[in-house]
Order: sequence, then structure tokens, then C-alpha cells
Amino acid sequence: MTEDELIAAFSAVLCGPDSKKVVLGIGDDAAAWRPSRSHLSVISTDALVEGIHFTTQGAAFDQIGYRALAANLSDIAAMGARPVLATIALGVPAGADPLDLVEIYRGVDRLARRAKIAIAGGDIVRSRDLFLSITVVGEVRPGNLKRRSGARVDDVVAVTGELGASRAALEGHDPAHTPVPRIAEGIWLGRSRNVHALMDISDGLSTDLARMAAASHCGAILDEVPVAPSANARARSLGEDPRRYAAAAGEDFELLAAVEPRVFSYLSARFAQRFGWPLLRIGTFRAGKGVALKDTGGEVPLEPSGWDHLAR
Amino acid sequence: MTEDELIAAFSAVLCGPDSKKVVLGIGDDAAAWRPSRSHLSVISTDALVEGIHFTTQGAAFDQIGYRALAANLSDIAAMGARPVLATIALGVPAGADPLDLVEIYRGVDRLARRAKIAIAGGDIVRSRDLFLSITVVGEVRPGNLKRRSGARVDDVVAVTGELGASRAALEGHDPAHTPVPRIAEGIWLGRSRNVHALMDISDGLSTDLARMAAASHCGAILDEVPVAPSANARARSLGEDPRRYAAAAGEDFELLAAVEPRVFSYLSARFAQRFGWPLLRIGTFRAGKGVALKDTGGEVPLEPSGWDHLAR
Repeated sequence: MTEDELIAAFSAVLCGPDSKKVVLGIGDDAAAWRPSRSHLSVISTDALVEGIHFTTQGAAFDQIGYRALAANLSDIAAMGARPVLATIALGVPAGADPLDLVEIYRGVDRLARRAKIAIAGGDIVRSRDLFLSITVVGEVRPGNLKRRSGARVDDVVAVTGELGASRAALEGHDPAHTPVPRIAEGIWLGRSRNVHALMDISDGLSTDLARMAAASHCGAILDEVPVAPSANARARSLGEDPRRYAAAAGEDFELLAAVEPRVFSYLSARFAQRFGWPLLRIGTFRAGKGVALKDTGGEVPLEPSGWDHLAR
Repeated sequence: MTEDELIAAFSAVLCGPDSKKVVLGIGDDAAAWRPSRSHLSVISTDALVEGIHFTTQGAAFDQIGYRALAANLSDIAAMGARPVLATIALGVPAGADPLDLVEIYRGVDRLARRAKIAIAGGDIVRSRDLFLSITVVGEVRPGNLKRRSGARVDDVVAVTGELGASRAALEGHDPAHTPVPRIAEGIWLGRSRNVHALMDISDGLSTDLARMAAASHCGAILDEVPVAPSANARARSLGEDPRRYAAAAGEDFELLAAVEPRVFSYLSARFAQRFGWPLLRIGTFRAGKGVALKDTGGEVPLEPSGWDHLAR
């Protein structure tokens, strides 16, 4: 059973009387509810497990904490929301060194300070393998909430940066690379009515663009894939196509947006004024299904090659 | 290292710039923040791990889901708050039967319907052992939020029901017993200004009353421990004192309250009108430290005998 099949089976069971306050449930980067008329809160949960998402052999434990929180903050950014606080459930093996565990919290704290959020509690339990399950809550004005399902035919496919650096780092190229969740960028894009859909690229562009297109009942054609220099070097050393390598790379945390085509150039220039680099145009949403990549002499399908979390 | 020592070490690291919106952080049943002036939101995270908190050998999988959500709902009830939604991080072993996993969600759904909350997403990851990490968000009027630190000398120590039935059930007596988080009771008690402190009894009365007393800078003397019939039978079959057996029993999810003594009888009677059974007076908060139990010919210390989650 794949992750998507399992989610579908669980969703079928969870048909209970949804709270009227919940405005967005299972299926987007985060869920949203409305605690009061003027406010919308969003919530996202991500778990990392030893032996699956990281190894503790020679690990920088603070990186484990950083990455776990980064994945969650990226989900909140993908809604156009501002993160407020996080809770952490930590599974601790019997033989764990308390100093290693404190290092995990140092990594969490490093990113929490940068994102100006509070770590507001959680749970510590005994477990055979180390795991972290982090939940982040954020806030957004109701009109600024972005979903992944709003892309329209002819919208520009845009990304906030080059892809593949995290994968290259995990594979040993530029291991000092630290992915940064695009929080300020997400809030900025959330404020624009010309951004029709937003999500983060956590499972690879090919997978996540396919998800956005499917949720929006359209397809997409990519003109290019912006490849990070370290990913380019890594792909060439493997003899792989750098574009396909970068499109299948997870944990980049760049944002993927569907933008009104008439204003794209203006929006990208304003984005560059604010953040120092432009919003990148990489393709176009179109009628139909699936994602394709322009290639010499035509186009080729770009299959979702990112991560099914249960296949690993 | 004990759970409490580890929490202290983590808290020391997490000294970052707390969001001004966060009004209650690590150390209570749930954390609280203020999304808008008129509102307070609370959040609680609890994890259950295979082999530690439950076994999958002949397990009723729907009970695993029910219990995991119940622990969280109880934490929200302990703040005087109304639960709104939950997220679930599920760790799935490679050989897991999808039907068993769906049963877990059926158990979650059963309680979610009863509590009128939405399951609003989460994460599914591969892991060696099955685990569930559930986060619940609730809401409460700012004036109704109850902490565990508000007990005053001479306050009545009160509980919402008899103790020990969950422990007896886990040990084979009355296995059909299902603990019910006291959501309506928590909201009701949260509305009373005469309830000075509130928490849930998830780790045993002896442990949780010691926590409430310590957080409130006082001690407590117990006149009695209300013992559930199944716990009484189980303790006697073991040759143990039923009061001590019940005081060391976790997962009861009854609420523990510190109540203004002058109004206790009136409040208990109103509670009984609303819920069909009285709020039980079991002792008194007093100056000093620690918790003691009245016994024939005097009093004996009641050491925290409940669960250190890392000692198991």
C-alpha cells in the first residue's frame, strides 16, 4: 500500500462530524481552522524516524532537530501563514546519550529563534528507535490562506529558488548546506491575490508539482528546472541529467507557486527587491493531466519521482 | 536520566525569544497562546509507542487509536478548554497490515465523533515500531484557562471520579473498561472561579497530586482515595492496599481540582446535577511540601508512584 492509498483509506474512516471551525482538512500542506472571525490558524505535523529519515551513526544531532522543525515550518510557509509555536514528541531509546538529545534541542532552538517561534511543550516517551514528531501552529488572515488547489490554466509555474542542494548535501556534496524554510517568502506570496496556489517542495518538484496540478484539475509543462550548483555537480558525477536529478530531490523547502501570468514579471521583480533574488518562472499550467518537461525536439513526461514516505 | 531531568535540560536550551502570544509554555498539561484578544488556544501532544505503551500481539487496534486520542483530549480538558481538532503522526512498520492501521483510525474516529473534533491531517512515516503521536488543539475563553499551579492552602483536593479502573483493565480485570476523557467536566470546572487549579490524572493520583502541589508551592493531605470496584478487586487479589493501588494507577483521565473550600459543597452538588455524580472531596491542600495519606493512627507519606515515561 502506498502512502497516498493509506491516506485515502484513513480519510474514508474519518468521516465524523467535522467541526464547523475547520476550513481545510487532510490533503494540503497544513490544516486550517478559524478560532475567531478575524483569524485563521493553521497546523502541520511531521515526523522523522531514526534509520528512515536520519542515522545516528556519526550524526550531527543538532542537524536532526533543525531538519525536523524546518520541514514543519516549510509546511506553514506553504499556506502563506506565519508560524507561532511548536510542540515536540520525542521518542528516546534506552541507551541514548542525554547530551545527544540536548543537541537535538539545540538544533530545534537555532531555527526556532530564527523563525521567532516558541517551543511550547510536547511529550517524551521511551521507544526503540529515536524519533521526533513536531507540530507547528501558525496564523494567517483568512484572505491570505493559500491552498495547493488554486492553480489555473495559463498560470505561471514559479519557484522561490534553485533545487537539488539538499539532496546533493545528503549524498555528500556540500554537506554544510542547510535548507532554509521560506517563511518570509511564504507570508509575502500569501498576501498577493495574484498567487493562486502555493505549496512547498518537500518531496521533489516532479512529485509536488504533480500534486498541485492534480489538486487544481490541470496539468503543467516545465520549460526548465533551476538546478543548484552542488546538485549539478553531483548529477554530472553520477552521469545523470541534472534537471531530472533536481526535480526528484526532496527537502529543498523552496516554495512552488501558481501565478497570474499577466503580472508575473512585475511580481517577480518586486519579490527580488524584497528578497534579493527573483521568483523563477519555470513553466506553465495547462489543460489536461500530468507534468511534462520540454526537451530537445519536444516534450517528455516527468513522472512523480519524489518520495512515497512508505516506500523508503 | 529521568523524564523530569530531561525536560529541565531541554527547557534550558530552549531559551529563545518566546513569542509574546504564548501565555503558557512547557510544564502544564497543555501550552496556550492567544491568536486574538478574545481567544485563547491550547495545544497538547502525546505519543504512544508499540512495545512501550501497547502491544500489537492480539491487540484491539481500535483501542490503540482510542487511547492515544483520549490521553490528548484529557490534557485539553485539564485546561478547561474545548477540543477543536487533532493531527496524527503515524509510524508504520514495513509489515503492518493496512486493515490494522485502518482499525486504529476507527478507534480515533469513534472518540473524535464523541468529542466533536475534526481529525485535520498529520503525517505517515515508515518506522521499525508502530507509533502514534497525536496533537490536539482546543479553545478556551482567556478567563477560563486553568493551570495546575493555582492551588491554595486550605483548598479542597477534589476528583471527578473513582480511580484505578484503567490499571485494573490493563491487568486483566474488566478489560472492556474504556476510560473517558472528562471534556464536558473540564469545560464546566473551567468556568468556575472557585476552581483554582485543574489537571488530569494520567500518571496516577500520587504523582499528579504531587505535581499540582509542587507547582502551587504547597503540600496536600488525603483523607481518602476513591477506588473503582474493579481496582478494589484487583488490589485485593494481589494482596495490596486498594488505596495505594488506585493512587498509583495511570490513564484514568479523571480530573484533579483545587477548589475554594467555602463553596465546595455547593459546587459538588451543582456538578452532580449536571453530570449525575458528585465531585469528590478527597483531601486538603496545606502549607509545606509533599503529599500524605491519612491512615489508622496518623498519616503516612504518599510517594509519587506513578509513571516516569522513561523508566518504563
